Amino acid sequence: MGGKLLPAALGAGSPHLSQVATSAAHGEDSPYFAGWKAYDENPYDAVTNPDGVIQMGLAENQVSFELIEGYLREHPEAAGWGGGAGSFRDNALFLDCHGLKSFRKAMASFMEKIRDGKARFDPDRIVLTAGATAANELLTFILANPGDALLIPTPYYPGFDRDLTWRTGVNIVPVHCDSANGFEVTVAALQEAYDEAAAAGMRVCGVLITNPSNPLGTTVKRTVLEDILDFVVCKNIHLISDEIYSGSVFAAPDLVSVAELVESRARHGGDDVANRVHIVYSLSKDLGLPGFRVGLVYSYNDAVVTTARRMSSFTLVSSQTQKTLAAMLSDEAFADAYIRTNREHLRARHDHIVAGLARAGVSCLRGNAGLFVWMDMRRLLGDGDGDATVAGELRLWDKMLHDVKLNISPGSSCHCSEPGWFRVCFANMSSATLDLALARISRFTDGWNCCS
Amino acid sequence: MGGKLLPAALGAGSPHLSQVATSAAHGEDSPYFAGWKAYDENPYDAVTNPDGVIQMGLAENQVSFELIEGYLREHPEAAGWGGGAGSFRDNALFLDCHGLKSFRKAMASFMEKIRDGKARFDPDRIVLTAGATAANELLTFILANPGDALLIPTPYYPGFDRDLTWRTGVNIVPVHCDSANGFEVTVAALQEAYDEAAAAGMRVCGVLITNPSNPLGTTVKRTVLEDILDFVVCKNIHLISDEIYSGSVFAAPDLVSVAELVESRARHGGDDVANRVHIVYSLSKDLGLPGFRVGLVYSYNDAVVTTARRMSSFTLVSSQTQKTLAAMLSDEAFADAYIRTNREHLRARHDHIVAGLARAGVSCLRGNAGLFVWMDMRRLLGDGDGDATVAGELRLWDKMLHDVKLNISPGSSCHCSEPGWFRVCFANMSSATLDLALARISRFTDGWNCCS
Repeated sequence: MGGKLLPAALGAGSPHLSQVATSAAHGEDSPYFAGWKAYDENPYDAVTNPDGVIQMGLAENQVSFELIEGYLREHPEAAGWGGGAGSFRDNALFLDCHGLKSFRKAMASFMEKIRDGKARFDPDRIVLTAGATAANELLTFILANPGDALLIPTPYYPGFDRDLTWRTGVNIVPVHCDSANGFEVTVAALQEAYDEAAAAGMRVCGVLITNPSNPLGTTVKRTVLEDILDFVVCKNIHLISDEIYSGSVFAAPDLVSVAELVESRARHGGDDVANRVHIVYSLSKDLGLPGFRVGLVYSYNDAVVTTARRMSSFTLVSSQTQKTLAAMLSDEAFADAYIRTNREHLRARHDHIVAGLARAGVSCLRGNAGLFVWMDMRRLLGDGDGDATVAGELRLWDKMLHDVKLNISPGSSCHCSEPGWFRVCFANMSSATLDLALARISRFTDGWNCCS
Repeated sequence: MGGKLLPAALGAGSPHLSQVATSAAHGEDSPYFAGWKAYDENPYDAVTNPDGVIQMGLAENQVSFELIEGYLREHPEAAGWGGGAGSFRDNALFLDCHGLKSFRKAMASFMEKIRDGKARFDPDRIVLTAGATAANELLTFILANPGDALLIPTPYYPGFDRDLTWRTGVNIVPVHCDSANGFEVTVAALQEAYDEAAAAGMRVCGVLITNPSNPLGTTVKRTVLEDILDFVVCKNIHLISDEIYSGSVFAAPDLVSVAELVESRARHGGDDVANRVHIVYSLSKDLGLPGFRVGLVYSYNDAVVTTARRMSSFTLVSSQTQKTLAAMLSDEAFADAYIRTNREHLRARHDHIVAGLARAGVSCLRGNAGLFVWMDMRRLLGDGDGDATVAGELRLWDKMLHDVKLNISPGSSCHCSEPGWFRVCFANMSSATLDLALARISRFTDGWNCCS
């Protein structure tokens, strides 16, 4: 080997990190994540910390766990290791970007059940990913070049700023929606966002919607969905429909999945629709299994399926977990009962929080889905001076976090155009904790009402 | 909602996919992956397809599975769901980019055992990823901008072309090594690659090595590693040391991990080294668990740890799998016995294939690690006309695949500068299958020897 280089003599500085590494696009400095940290530092516990912060910023589903636990108690073989095809050896070695066929079949069937059989899913179009976070990023890598724009109706899930833009270099251009029509997407708003992107020199690659909406807790109306489909066809762009709450629709109207519309248009000769539509799903919300990291891309476009499958090497799902969940979800009786009961539990929780908030003088957008309500606190903004600004919203959020001791997510962290709205999660705690949270809100609004 | 857009009237074409999606950087068209496909189409089976292709292109470790299976038989609680802290509920909900503390502690301890206690690992510097594929890509995103260069000694693992460049837009610039010195990295070769990158206008962000080397099956000598460290300090760039075969060193000399050198230099005041060194590890090879998707980044640089943790949201490990493996690897007696026995098994396999190849007149680079040998078939190139070209190598590869019915990986797929070398895996099959493979090679070289 050649001559030695003496490091001490060469006085090297600190090595560079990338622009991605040093950018703030990971979003962890936003109030959305800041609230989580405040909760982590002082978490409520009924016994050990009764004055702590109650976490209402986490869209986690704990209301139907006893069903899953019951299944595993009765079916220890689902998680254990017998001999034969389900043996440890076979699963440990199973490394195939296609994923376990039995699991993809079970997922396709589960997605059909959730939609009451109104859409069909082909297991061979399912590409598994370690959560929806990865699924959304993966689709963005496939559909968009750095600098391109993805149009997303507001308010939207704060994590999208990280998931869709951080490593891809893609831009999110908001499609502004407001309370005048219940935050529905309009063609005019889509066109406005499209024009804004074009004016900034960006190529628009597609529209991304969440249906049911996170954070609104509402499903997208059929007519609105038809308009969005027409828009993406007209512009020759893509539509990503993130349907990770599709199994959490607990009241009328029913979910209309884009899958239904794709099938309906295909039957009527609309062959220019399917190849631009891509669905994201996950078991983190409907089944309450975020730790298991199961997400997927479902695309009607063959090239997208092939590319997504190759790209999924970066984010594969543990075969152990695939095996356990394949057993659970292919049990038709279990899956049917789970979907029905989970809806009932979510509906009860939802109705309970809405009624409690109403008693405290706080209303919500009328919701029918998800693990949260979209709470209207516009009248409480600006310390009574009617100052409906983001600054006022963040002051109220800070008060809610540090005085009322509730971590809720301000609408501005969801890029909402209208200050004063908050996302409040209701399924990640016990009924008793939810009641305490409602009592805290009631005390706060009482105080506010009497002082103002 | 606004006016309807009629898709049929607007004649949309097919929506665009990204440059990433349409590029060939996924590498699946290379002989490395083509050989896998040929195997998939005609896989050897002792009973049902005795004339099929034997897969020797897959670096999978099946030689020590009975140890793991034995552990799980004796400890059903590791994979099952009891009550308390290890309950299904806690694991299903556990979604923390930090990963299970118990699992990171077990991983740190396992990495120390593999290095015979010659290096220490801090569990808080471990960032878990769904496999080493994701760990390497994640580090590249953090250390390099699109268009930057990463220097990698040849021959190198064919998957790096996909893992490090496809989505990041980073370039790999090869550091050419050859058989004259047993494919060791030299400072001259590093400098040459560095100059080549600079001449092409690329910023060099770092050097990536595999230690033990894939595909060479050798460990990097201490003096060579010192030179590489000096080089990266001198250039003020990073060093990624991919040590996913560190537990598969089965003969002298012992592994010298970069972790040892970092600690040694820190003790001697070399504080400009640690913050540029990053280690990649995985359980896919040493423990033979590719399906479970467990990889990690270990960095001595705080900013890299923080950023990697944020970025790991795209590639988290199933908490179910973390729980199972935390139980297994924190059992000290099991871990010690596994490491020792696995080394013995690998050594026996390695010595068996090397002896069998020698009897067939084929030699290998002297190896001491890994799940493969680096086989020298230079004298068989060019159909006897001494044509030592990549074309000749690929003709021989094709013959091996379709006539001899063995899928081995041509050196050119590993960017080897010297035609005629092949990576041959020996741990992903039974002893009987390995003997059949050796018999096929022997028959082939006999035929070649008598005809030439």
